[in-house]
Amino acid sequence: MAGNSIGQCFRLTTFGESHGKALGCIIDGIPPGLSITESDLQKELNRRRPGNSDFVTSRKELDQIKILSGVFNGVTTGTSIGLIIKNTNHRPQDYDNIKNIFRPGHADYTYEQKYGIRDYRGGGRSSARETVMRVSAGAIAKKYLREKLGVKIHGCITQIGNIKCEIKDLDIVEKNPFFCPDPNKINLLNKLLFDLKKESDSIGAKVTIIVNYPPTGIGEPVFDRLDADLAHALMSINAVKGVEIGDGFNVINLKGSKSRDELTRKGFTSNHSGGILGGISSGQQIILHIAIKATSSIGVPIRTINNNGEEIEIITKGRHDTCAGIRSVPIAEAMVAIVLMDHCMRYRAQCGDITTNLISLK
Amino acid sequence: MAGNSIGQCFRLTTFGESHGKALGCIIDGIPPGLSITESDLQKELNRRRPGNSDFVTSRKELDQIKILSGVFNGVTTGTSIGLIIKNTNHRPQDYDNIKNIFRPGHADYTYEQKYGIRDYRGGGRSSARETVMRVSAGAIAKKYLREKLGVKIHGCITQIGNIKCEIKDLDIVEKNPFFCPDPNKINLLNKLLFDLKKESDSIGAKVTIIVNYPPTGIGEPVFDRLDADLAHALMSINAVKGVEIGDGFNVINLKGSKSRDELTRKGFTSNHSGGILGGISSGQQIILHIAIKATSSIGVPIRTINNNGEEIEIITKGRHDTCAGIRSVPIAEAMVAIVLMDHCMRYRAQCGDITTNLISLK
Amino acid sequence: MAGNSIGQCFRLTTFGESHGKALGCIIDGIPPGLSITESDLQKELNRRRPGNSDFVTSRKELDQIKILSGVFNGVTTGTSIGLIIKNTNHRPQDYDNIKNIFRPGHADYTYEQKYGIRDYRGGGRSSARETVMRVSAGAIAKKYLREKLGVKIHGCITQIGNIKCEIKDLDIVEKNPFFCPDPNKINLLNKLLFDLKKESDSIGAKVTIIVNYPPTGIGEPVFDRLDADLAHALMSINAVKGVEIGDGFNVINLKGSKSRDELTRKGFTSNHSGGILGGISSGQQIILHIAIKATSSIGVPIRTINNNGEEIEIITKGRHDTCAGIRSVPIAEAMVAIVLMDHCMRYRAQCGDITTNLISLK
Amino acid sequence: MAGNSIGQCFRLTTFGESHGKALGCIIDGIPPGLSITESDLQKELNRRRPGNSDFVTSRKELDQIKILSGVFNGVTTGTSIGLIIKNTNHRPQDYDNIKNIFRPGHADYTYEQKYGIRDYRGGGRSSARETVMRVSAGAIAKKYLREKLGVKIHGCITQIGNIKCEIKDLDIVEKNPFFCPDPNKINLLNKLLFDLKKESDSIGAKVTIIVNYPPTGIGEPVFDRLDADLAHALMSINAVKGVEIGDGFNVINLKGSKSRDELTRKGFTSNHSGGILGGISSGQQIILHIAIKATSSIGVPIRTINNNGEEIEIITKGRHDTCAGIRSVPIAEAMVAIVLMDHCMRYRAQCGDITTNLISLK
Repeated sequence: MAGNSIGQCFRLTTFGESHGKALGCIIDGIPPGLSITESDLQKELNRRRPGNSDFVTSRKELDQIKILSGVFNGVTTGTSIGLIIKNTNHRPQDYDNIKNIFRPGHADYTYEQKYGIRDYRGGGRSSARETVMRVSAGAIAKKYLREKLGVKIHGCITQIGNIKCEIKDLDIVEKNPFFCPDPNKINLLNKLLFDLKKESDSIGAKVTIIVNYPPTGIGEPVFDRLDADLAHALMSINAVKGVEIGDGFNVINLKGSKSRDELTRKGFTSNHSGGILGGISSGQQIILHIAIKATSSIGVPIRTINNNGEEIEIITKGRHDTCAGIRSVPIAEAMVAIVLMDHCMRYRAQCGDITTNLISLK
Repeated sequence: MAGNSIGQCFRLTTFGESHGKALGCIIDGIPPGLSITESDLQKELNRRRPGNSDFVTSRKELDQIKILSGVFNGVTTGTSIGLIIKNTNHRPQDYDNIKNIFRPGHADYTYEQKYGIRDYRGGGRSSARETVMRVSAGAIAKKYLREKLGVKIHGCITQIGNIKCEIKDLDIVEKNPFFCPDPNKINLLNKLLFDLKKESDSIGAKVTIIVNYPPTGIGEPVFDRLDADLAHALMSINAVKGVEIGDGFNVINLKGSKSRDELTRKGFTSNHSGGILGGISSGQQIILHIAIKATSSIGVPIRTINNNGEEIEIITKGRHDTCAGIRSVPIAEAMVAIVLMDHCMRYRAQCGDITTNLISLK
Repeated sequence: MAGNSIGQCFRLTTFGESHGKALGCIIDGIPPGLSITESDLQKELNRRRPGNSDFVTSRKELDQIKILSGVFNGVTTGTSIGLIIKNTNHRPQDYDNIKNIFRPGHADYTYEQKYGIRDYRGGGRSSARETVMRVSAGAIAKKYLREKLGVKIHGCITQIGNIKCEIKDLDIVEKNPFFCPDPNKINLLNKLLFDLKKESDSIGAKVTIIVNYPPTGIGEPVFDRLDADLAHALMSINAVKGVEIGDGFNVINLKGSKSRDELTRKGFTSNHSGGILGGISSGQQIILHIAIKATSSIGVPIRTINNNGEEIEIITKGRHDTCAGIRSVPIAEAMVAIVLMDHCMRYRAQCGDITTNLISLK
Repeated sequence: MAGNSIGQCFRLTTFGESHGKALGCIIDGIPPGLSITESDLQKELNRRRPGNSDFVTSRKELDQIKILSGVFNGVTTGTSIGLIIKNTNHRPQDYDNIKNIFRPGHADYTYEQKYGIRDYRGGGRSSARETVMRVSAGAIAKKYLREKLGVKIHGCITQIGNIKCEIKDLDIVEKNPFFCPDPNKINLLNKLLFDLKKESDSIGAKVTIIVNYPPTGIGEPVFDRLDADLAHALMSINAVKGVEIGDGFNVINLKGSKSRDELTRKGFTSNHSGGILGGISSGQQIILHIAIKATSSIGVPIRTINNNGEEIEIITKGRHDTCAGIRSVPIAEAMVAIVLMDHCMRYRAQCGDITTNLISLK
């Protein structure tokens, strides 16, 4: 059943397969009056784009975004925005050999079980290529949040394999191929990934998203809590296996006296909650972590079955990332932006003017 | 904006405050022909009910459920089901002293920021008392899944504080006050909670949910993936700060060659994925973990502010759980049941008969 | 599938059968800060209530509304509102004789076809008794619209049988048992209905709804146009067979030069459009008409079949309206109020402050 | 707020302006396994296409549809379908003169009131050009309904101006430029429209939609009734001012003894209800009527105002239909198909196999 949409007030709907003619989306509900150009979107797409380093797929896609509607004279009109990216470097023939084979760790088997038919070329709809439209829509949401509400979203890698990165300097995130915020770890990451590439293997990662200056009061009890909707959006990204808000799984071993945040005249003195209380933003920094599993398409052989149930050993060729988690950074930022945008609008529907709830403007 | 509903085909909408007149819900979309009695629901409610052990709130609520519609001669008719539980042991006067105070770790501050008004009695709508209706609706979903589709959902505690419990014996889960599946840890848990109670403190917990015999093929790419919808539902439970599927955060340090599941003629030989690939169920056991923070209402004093922004030190009296995570077990089971039920119906809408996708019936 | 909800931002979900224990609803998304008492709702319910004249069903229901949540100290808190009305004068035994019979003109046959089971007592869920919750929710929407936005909704009867009523005086609508706005037609209506009652027959009616001082700019192209959503809401009322906006079916025979509305500095000089252009309100008076068929439950015998497909002749006893259309007036007003409320909030989500678009405040 | 989607299980979302780069849509929820080619869609688009007779706009658009996703090897895969039509014959400069003028009878004024900005070229998003995507999605729904469920949808003109057409022969509908089912009226219609064209005026029309062999049991009480959802879908078409089901507005003057349908062993003996009882299909022919107002863009001058509130007289040049109602026939068919498709799937979600409810297969 229809599951290719996300958001209530700000709603993104997407289409497109890895090796189909094009990928596209419709963004519905955008407020009128926002300046938007294709280069605003392209900039975010380039951050996600394959070919940015040695450790991501070598597939060369320009990912050239076209705005087809909803923007007139450079400004949103309030009507639905259609976006499209044509696939140019698709090589469906690369996938003829896996036509009848279920690649372990991929969705081949489950798509076949669900639909009885599947576009096997590069995973079809299940490919992470689908995320270009998340990033594109996210670029619009990010721009609105930044320009109109002063909200800023930062993503970075905080762990790859056993190398943990501290958030020491967000300014360097865009200046290294790992979106790493820890200058001391860049060489280590480089070595780790270089070694893995030699082994034809891959590795998992942890991505952290920080939202600075979120408005207070967004999030809709009791089911559409802000944290619940963020968890939904982040878990919907390919290969994500865990989501945390604030202290996350560390709360298991924390006493109540240590896991609540003291309130003073000057504000909160700690942020165990990650900026959300009872599903509603407190105005503190929102802090989220996600775990992304290693790419399953690697040069290491594994046993599987084909459409006829026969066993076979495969090595997944093709062009794949050594650490897919890296490119998840702009995707996760985009999903957070989409959810925040939606919730700012949902707040406005019920409670009116949101600018009075902006920390950044106070 | 309207956020008190969950589910598309099987939809739950709830109302009610901790110390209001009653809590209730509407369950919409239930297939006709399911036998349902009030005692089916009561049984699940009793598992969640306060007063079941020394370490949960001493508030005495019978939680007597009434079915008001949608069931005729003991069988669902397909029309919407109305349920109600009256509050009997509400003591609003207990809360007069916190009328103007924002309890740290609670939603008092954020509700005030959002709505400009709040029912301060026991947290009003933000109270976990709201979950009685999740459990009630979940009881119906669980019954349908079990009787019509052979799907079985088991929840248990797998960690409290630093005590980890292995899933050794699901049969003992209902026979100890901790929903603990590990016979060796029951005494340890008892001692831990006894000590905490003496300190007037509280502690976090980890809950694990296992789904046996799920149908293959449920989950709707690309946003309403089964894991994404489960993450949404679980994160919407009070005090949940993290959600994992399968290997969860362990994938960060797993190589691709170790985190994918081999497929053989006899099925998968491992289950790193937790039963979901590309957002669609593979038919393997579905495995989920959640982290629940410690109750913030404890006897340990903490600084906070009141409505006027003045600082004050408070001790939260009232009747509270030493480990709220324990009572989250039936709630988490209920949320998983609601999501699975919804997705079985969503499958059916698009792809037809689901009984052909049942492992249990094969 | 779930179909008992209406509205996006302001959402009403209902439950309850004609002769079940109770009817109820949840209203989700109401802005905080609105004063609401049970008597605000009761007043509207009394307008709809059976027993108000000789020509409506003699079933005696007090329709006593209870507010169970969402209102604290007389004011909405922004959380979901639960409402309930207990059935007191249900006489299920009245319906034993039609247990296995499909009453012509009623939904007995189609409910049986759809669900394979039905609550036959008074039509169960298909009974117009369900509309008590529409009227209750509508009372809240009407109050918000009137008090906060200055919007006023008036309903009246404009035709019963072949007697057409002009809208001469809206002030007399509440002062006669027909909601008739034409003082010259009240005696004629009285005679018509008296004669029909003697024949044990019934008659159709036309209801007109007028909205004064609607905000400009509400309605969401291209599918959720204001007129489309109004048509949906009005057609969802029992027995409604037609909906018109503005000139309605008269446009078929109007030239373009006669069916468009001239715009001058002082505003529009005519209102063929009925206040909506391109699905968006123009700020003019919104004018809607609906056609309600005659009650099928009458004393005139008709042939039908029973569950076994055997033919039988029935006279539908019970307590029924001579002209059900009369009691549709407050129901139609309520549905219009619910749609307008929802669209004012939807406007606000995307476009911000709506008070600048209010004619009444300009 | 997001309003460019229709349907729950089978969901259509559209974008595009009259003189923008392209129009497109996403169809979400389509069952896998349906054969679909671009020519299936093109055939329906050609029925709607301008330039088919002397009395429709002379704008020459090829309306060449491209399927971008969701179809693999000619068959639907169950993933979302992206469709696109590029605008080729757009002449934005034609509209420079109305840049600041609100054309009476059009949505220029209301779009400006709502969004504060508008794409004035040919009405932008408010243009009926948007309906190409309704027709495209409808073609897919129609194909599924016809091939998989045996449901057939027929539209025709039943009145233009004061010329009423009887449904004498549905076979001739595609063989005359008016979709007229009455061979005796074709010459009269021709003369009427010829005369109107000479006067530079336009005229309204009535369109009738007939559904043969609908399944019994579709439609979701109490708000998403089949008739309510059909009314919504039909009223969302440009220029529609009224919707009727079955006897429609004629029921006002019908007694209960004359407006209900007798049931016999062989089925119903009349069809006053139009095939829907209590919001659920009875299996009888579904009969719907809509009223479409005359095009407001005509050669007859009218007074209006501009953005500055100054009065001005305009003649709307451009390329417009003498009777826009004619081209509404395939659009209305498409909307009915989309609603029926959605409701068949909604039925399936809750009640299972729908083929047992098919009259055509019985």
